[in-house]
Amino acid sequence: MIVSTEKLPEECYSLLQEYELREATEANLAEAEYLISWPSKLRSLVSKMPKLKVIQTLSAGVDDVPYDLLRNVVVLSNAGAYSTSVAEHAWALALALAKGVNVRKREPTYSITDQTALVLGAGGIGSEIARIAKQGFRMRVIGVSRSFRRPEFFDEMLPMDQLKEAIRRGDVVFDTLPLNKSTRGVLNYSVLSLLKERAILVNVGRAETIVEEDVMRVLKERKDVRFGTDVFWRKDGKENFESELWNMDNFMGTYHTAGASASGETLRKAMIKACNNLKNYLEKGESENVVKLSDYV
Amino acid sequence: MIVSTEKLPEECYSLLQEYELREATEANLAEAEYLISWPSKLRSLVSKMPKLKVIQTLSAGVDDVPYDLLRNVVVLSNAGAYSTSVAEHAWALALALAKGVNVRKREPTYSITDQTALVLGAGGIGSEIARIAKQGFRMRVIGVSRSFRRPEFFDEMLPMDQLKEAIRRGDVVFDTLPLNKSTRGVLNYSVLSLLKERAILVNVGRAETIVEEDVMRVLKERKDVRFGTDVFWRKDGKENFESELWNMDNFMGTYHTAGASASGETLRKAMIKACNNLKNYLEKGESENVVKLSDYV
Repeated sequence: MIVSTEKLPEECYSLLQEYELREATEANLAEAEYLISWPSKLRSLVSKMPKLKVIQTLSAGVDDVPYDLLRNVVVLSNAGAYSTSVAEHAWALALALAKGVNVRKREPTYSITDQTALVLGAGGIGSEIARIAKQGFRMRVIGVSRSFRRPEFFDEMLPMDQLKEAIRRGDVVFDTLPLNKSTRGVLNYSVLSLLKERAILVNVGRAETIVEEDVMRVLKERKDVRFGTDVFWRKDGKENFESELWNMDNFMGTYHTAGASASGETLRKAMIKACNNLKNYLEKGESENVVKLSDYV
Repeated sequence: MIVSTEKLPEECYSLLQEYELREATEANLAEAEYLISWPSKLRSLVSKMPKLKVIQTLSAGVDDVPYDLLRNVVVLSNAGAYSTSVAEHAWALALALAKGVNVRKREPTYSITDQTALVLGAGGIGSEIARIAKQGFRMRVIGVSRSFRRPEFFDEMLPMDQLKEAIRRGDVVFDTLPLNKSTRGVLNYSVLSLLKERAILVNVGRAETIVEEDVMRVLKERKDVRFGTDVFWRKDGKENFESELWNMDNFMGTYHTAGASASGETLRKAMIKACNNLKNYLEKGESENVVKLSDYV
């Protein structure tokens, strides 16, 4: 039996028709081996699910999963489900910063076409950002990542230990890194201070890959550098959209809305993708979305 | 003799070395047959240039040329010179509106990929916007224009008299129309009220192609419609950036900065292109940049 904490689209019931897909009632939780949910809801559920074998998250990021409570449970992420909308969002931040959209004064604009894009993290989101850079804006694209999902959109592919060399070269730097043990705070002052003249930095990954005080310091010291983010630093476990950044002229933000389309279509497709992931795993016993627990624990 | 009111880059002197390229002193103006300048400077110059045969503008738009003062003078525009930077700018406005960048509240986002772009005017700027729509965001692209510079970037090409049919179909509508007798006020209430649900309208052409009161009325009646512009309506002959639009939640603007890059590179390239246009015309006696006076007089 599969339980889901969320109302899923019809397509999920067709996809998973060989399994019992049910609501997350107390009785169903007690019997179910498989769970579809958001990471933030897991902490209170896990203790009610003695037979739990597999968690399929609806989110792409899995840094909020309560790994401390899990014993012999496989976690499947929904990586790639939001690639298109998050990549559009990253470009919206980058271009709005480049052109000073809605700044309410005459602002010098930065050029994008033929410049260099540096993409940190080359999963679904990073690859789609790279594709738009290359095909849409004819940019040279450098990727820094542990692995590359779509190598064809990168002119250069560098490992994470070359971040310091790479950061000097990006006119637009996109942070799409997942948050795990090795990426937390990786963009600190010693890295950020190497940003090129008139660099634009955009974060659509997780806020905590950047050190908040350090990016603030760089933005104060370097008025030519512009920073935009859709993701904010957590406080008491909750994403905290209050930030001094909003008072800075070289900052623009959104409220973690990259996956939240007005039509609801992005979420619907993401849910169907999650059901597909789970189905594939149940049939094949493996999936590229299996979370490497050692990254987090 | 060619005179220029602006300091031109070295490349212009090489390109035009067969001609005397000089500063716009009173003495030079009296002798010169060719003039390189901005349209806004022409009114005071023309009477000082009895031998004037050809004006090469540095701007792409030529609606500010004082046609009433010109007798047997050929006007060459600099159409295409700002295509790349204006197209980037148009996309910055479109995406910032779609994603609610810097709106300082949680805003529903609009999706772009796989939607329909409607591009009004298919010269250099419109064609580059269409290319980004197609190659960058995999959109279906409809063009409405008198002529099409790069037909390969349009899925459908419609004449201007089909504007009303076309406007119902665009998820993102880009206005790149030049301002002339037939385009002034063409986007009035009867056209704008046909915009699709959650349409985004962006103007990087000339403000006066849209009726200001009419777009304001539509934005008040239709909170789902979002409008962004880099160009504002003239008042006493001067572009007036004060507008009630700034008070509206579904509006974003910039201060006619689409061609003004911080590095100065856009202007430098535009000046070189103007010198190339003039050289070609002087050598061949024709150019695709010759302004059709009947559009304006």
